[in-house]
Amino acid sequence: MGIKTVGLDADDTLWHNEKIFREAEQYFVQLLGRCADNEIIERTLFSTIARNLGLYGYGFKSFTLSMIETASHLYNKVIPSSKMREIISLGQSLMDKPVNLIDGVVEGLEALRKNYRLLLISKGDLVEQNRKVEKSGLKSYFDGIEIVSHKDKPVYEELLKRNRVDGNEFVMVGNSLKSDILPALEAGAYAVYIPYDITWVHEMAEEPYDNARYFKVDKFADLPEFLKMIDHKG
Amino acid sequence: MGIKTVGLDADDTLWHNEKIFREAEQYFVQLLGRCADNEIIERTLFSTIARNLGLYGYGFKSFTLSMIETASHLYNKVIPSSKMREIISLGQSLMDKPVNLIDGVVEGLEALRKNYRLLLISKGDLVEQNRKVEKSGLKSYFDGIEIVSHKDKPVYEELLKRNRVDGNEFVMVGNSLKSDILPALEAGAYAVYIPYDITWVHEMAEEPYDNARYFKVDKFADLPEFLKMIDHKG
Repeated sequence: MGIKTVGLDADDTLWHNEKIFREAEQYFVQLLGRCADNEIIERTLFSTIARNLGLYGYGFKSFTLSMIETASHLYNKVIPSSKMREIISLGQSLMDKPVNLIDGVVEGLEALRKNYRLLLISKGDLVEQNRKVEKSGLKSYFDGIEIVSHKDKPVYEELLKRNRVDGNEFVMVGNSLKSDILPALEAGAYAVYIPYDITWVHEMAEEPYDNARYFKVDKFADLPEFLKMIDHKG
Repeated sequence: MGIKTVGLDADDTLWHNEKIFREAEQYFVQLLGRCADNEIIERTLFSTIARNLGLYGYGFKSFTLSMIETASHLYNKVIPSSKMREIISLGQSLMDKPVNLIDGVVEGLEALRKNYRLLLISKGDLVEQNRKVEKSGLKSYFDGIEIVSHKDKPVYEELLKRNRVDGNEFVMVGNSLKSDILPALEAGAYAVYIPYDITWVHEMAEEPYDNARYFKVDKFADLPEFLKMIDHKG
């Protein structure tokens, strides 16, 4: 294969993230418990987030704005000011969460950087992702940190170009088939899918079994050995 | 001087931006008119934005969240749900605004790209800034688009490094002394200040008159000739 550069997704690939948002959703449902049934609150929040994704993009500010919009629809006439402040605090609290690394990440990066140039490629909010990178303590493992608003074929093509990387010498690694795997393959790169135990519905997609450049490993700890094997660096 | 690369700020350097937020502020004050005096609404919004800047960063989502937080403080007990929806719509409407270029920008970039490599260096929200770059129609003038969460000395040092630019061969151009001029000078680059007719209070700073690498021009249209002159490319 001749891989020279490994691109690594961050949220739910290097550290736990989705769980934090799922917990916040549950807390939000409790907050609004008095004004509607749980299923209605969940469904309204879900559709509001989906509708706003193109306009707001990803991240805690977008999530907070969609929680507030949901409340403004579910509270018939008036919203208690205190309730609104609780929702704002809930959103802000997402930025104070510790960054919990996924098992085997430090050892994995330690091994990977011996053979490859490493790029962290994360989509989301600039302030939020930069803060998580700092908190993670992993910054020094990477030759480059790329934070993008979304991940599609043109974005990967531009990333490869700006980092002077040939698609034939690049493998993207991540937990999202939609954002990390499919568009990277479309851009002519290799891709390794590492499933995370929960997947945000907006990141779901079919596995591209028929694509010879598509691979899958069970956990991050297996990645270095797996790349060595398929890349004949063993 | 031997300048090879010109870094250009975007908001209020290439296109009008601050006015849009000032207008939105005035509209917000009208929206809340019934619950407090104008000065109190303005002062509360201002202090809320200032307090949240570090946590939220810049951009329309941060601004919207601060408007909502302001309302949740100024409405004593309850906020009309319709009022909350109006504030959310006001925030969203900021993304639909046309991008109005500043006079002389197209001709200026046309002239600059003949002699220099051009980098657009804008701070703010990824989705928002990318959208404005697309709408502006200016993307093709630039060799690189850099969107950062904030602009300080380390950020400029990293930008110069990742773009393989020597500070002695780089000049930063912008309307913010605090974000475009002072940190670029600290990073060892040259800087040209182009004042905009209104300056956000958070971007105000003293002009570094005593710095030999600091320059000032009245308007963007004068930039190409001015750089030619100081750079001896005349």
